[in-house]
Amino acid sequence: MSKTFSITILGSNSALPTSERYPTAQVLNVSERFFLIDCGEGTQIQLRRNRIKFSKINHIFISHLHGDHCFGLIGLISTMGLLGRIVDLHIHCHPDLEKILVPQLDYFCKDMPFKVIFDCFDWKKQDMIYEDKNMEVYTIPLVHRVPTVGFLFKEKVAERKVRKEFVFKYQPSIKEIIAIKHGEPYYTKDGELILNEDITIEPPKPLAYAFCTDTRPAKKAIDQIKDVDLLYHESTFLKEDKKLAHKTYHSTAEQAANIAKEANVKQLMIGHYSTRYKDLSLFLEEAKTVFENTVLGREGVVVTLA
Amino acid sequence: MSKTFSITILGSNSALPTSERYPTAQVLNVSERFFLIDCGEGTQIQLRRNRIKFSKINHIFISHLHGDHCFGLIGLISTMGLLGRIVDLHIHCHPDLEKILVPQLDYFCKDMPFKVIFDCFDWKKQDMIYEDKNMEVYTIPLVHRVPTVGFLFKEKVAERKVRKEFVFKYQPSIKEIIAIKHGEPYYTKDGELILNEDITIEPPKPLAYAFCTDTRPAKKAIDQIKDVDLLYHESTFLKEDKKLAHKTYHSTAEQAANIAKEANVKQLMIGHYSTRYKDLSLFLEEAKTVFENTVLGREGVVVTLA
Repeated sequence: MSKTFSITILGSNSALPTSERYPTAQVLNVSERFFLIDCGEGTQIQLRRNRIKFSKINHIFISHLHGDHCFGLIGLISTMGLLGRIVDLHIHCHPDLEKILVPQLDYFCKDMPFKVIFDCFDWKKQDMIYEDKNMEVYTIPLVHRVPTVGFLFKEKVAERKVRKEFVFKYQPSIKEIIAIKHGEPYYTKDGELILNEDITIEPPKPLAYAFCTDTRPAKKAIDQIKDVDLLYHESTFLKEDKKLAHKTYHSTAEQAANIAKEANVKQLMIGHYSTRYKDLSLFLEEAKTVFENTVLGREGVVVTLA
Repeated sequence: MSKTFSITILGSNSALPTSERYPTAQVLNVSERFFLIDCGEGTQIQLRRNRIKFSKINHIFISHLHGDHCFGLIGLISTMGLLGRIVDLHIHCHPDLEKILVPQLDYFCKDMPFKVIFDCFDWKKQDMIYEDKNMEVYTIPLVHRVPTVGFLFKEKVAERKVRKEFVFKYQPSIKEIIAIKHGEPYYTKDGELILNEDITIEPPKPLAYAFCTDTRPAKKAIDQIKDVDLLYHESTFLKEDKKLAHKTYHSTAEQAANIAKEANVKQLMIGHYSTRYKDLSLFLEEAKTVFENTVLGREGVVVTLA
């Protein structure tokens, strides 16, 4: 199967949804494993609109416990139950979410055929909170009015692929193939040395996506998000409202772009716009004056990295 | 101000929302006082789409505690708080809702400038649960898997209007005018009798709207909903799935229409369609074979009675 690595925006707005802009939710698709990031009200409807199967989501990451980032959870989980899901669902979150959500699940979703597992994290630490064969996810402590983290999704370096011609010609053992995949050279039965680079194919470069919302400019995260392929950074306000951004622990589009520049990321996506602004092109314009390779996060926008 | 009496459908679907159909929510507009009936996920977005001001809603009526009828409450209330609402909000509901919602309000909406007041009702009784100058609202006990009521919204009989010419000519006292408004005749200073009907105008006929969801055919409600101007009756299924309707305590379009006929209502609106059906015109067709004056409830549909 060919590799996929893409982000779909389900909601781009801040606290107050409008008739067209939903609260925060995104989906990261890593080769048809879907990671849901935040889950504002209406996420399940937006998932349907974007034709993303609920059954492919096994892990949900919640950045913080403001309603516009988690009010969609109970509806989504309830629907998953009605659809007959049987696979456990993991929610990576602040421990308070478990206290709030469990009584609701007990009341509304009594006989669900699957378990909801709360994988609670320490929001003050840069911890690895998820790992599988291909990926690691880390918390990124942020600066907001309540405990808040971003998430860094990092692909692992894949094994090198062994060239078919070589296998056909030299018939190496399984043990030898594993060694070659890890970069070892090969010695023929005659003792001849064959360099690893001559018999393997370089794997695709591992990709990284950093999600930073809601926060004042994520300066303390710069080391962690350095060089990522895509940074999502909130830009609730335009720079003309910089004071308000500071007061409410948010960022402006210019500040988001400055973080992108300083962290030397390849691409920036902005979002979490305040309802006060009607013309979102102003955000893109403002960010681009500092960091050219910026995308305006909007409902339905898909950024494909692979 | 001229009188208004209209129903706007915000959500027409049953349990599982689709990309176009929202879970149950409706707004009754009685001369610019808005009563919200049920509040599925996404109701606040649908209110915005239909340009209904949140500040005009002071009373919310919740039929029962299945998620598709109440998961939108926390988001709506939270937004009302962010918009600076100061007027109390009343929720008319089963007592369990208070137990579930209060911990969420305490966590997410700590410093709201208004109070949420839970006016809990006994779902087994046909009680008057709300009254103002112009209107009364009654519970309609229904038959569903959990405690469920419908709601009967009944305008009061308005006072008769006294003709201006009469007031100008005879200059009656305030006390006499009040008596005339209540239907009394008038005696001139010369002792001449003037019939009430000659000096007053008949007020507009009081209107009544009955909302019945979710339920098996609401037979036991027929006395209560007799002759209403508009009956909303759920029709989750088509008659081909009658057994499933019975098993899940729902109704078919044909059954809804039979109730409308038996209760001699003027107009029927159907809704709460199961996600399994794509072509909703089949519901309308089925209902119309029994009860011609039927409207298909869909998002954005407005039925105006005055």
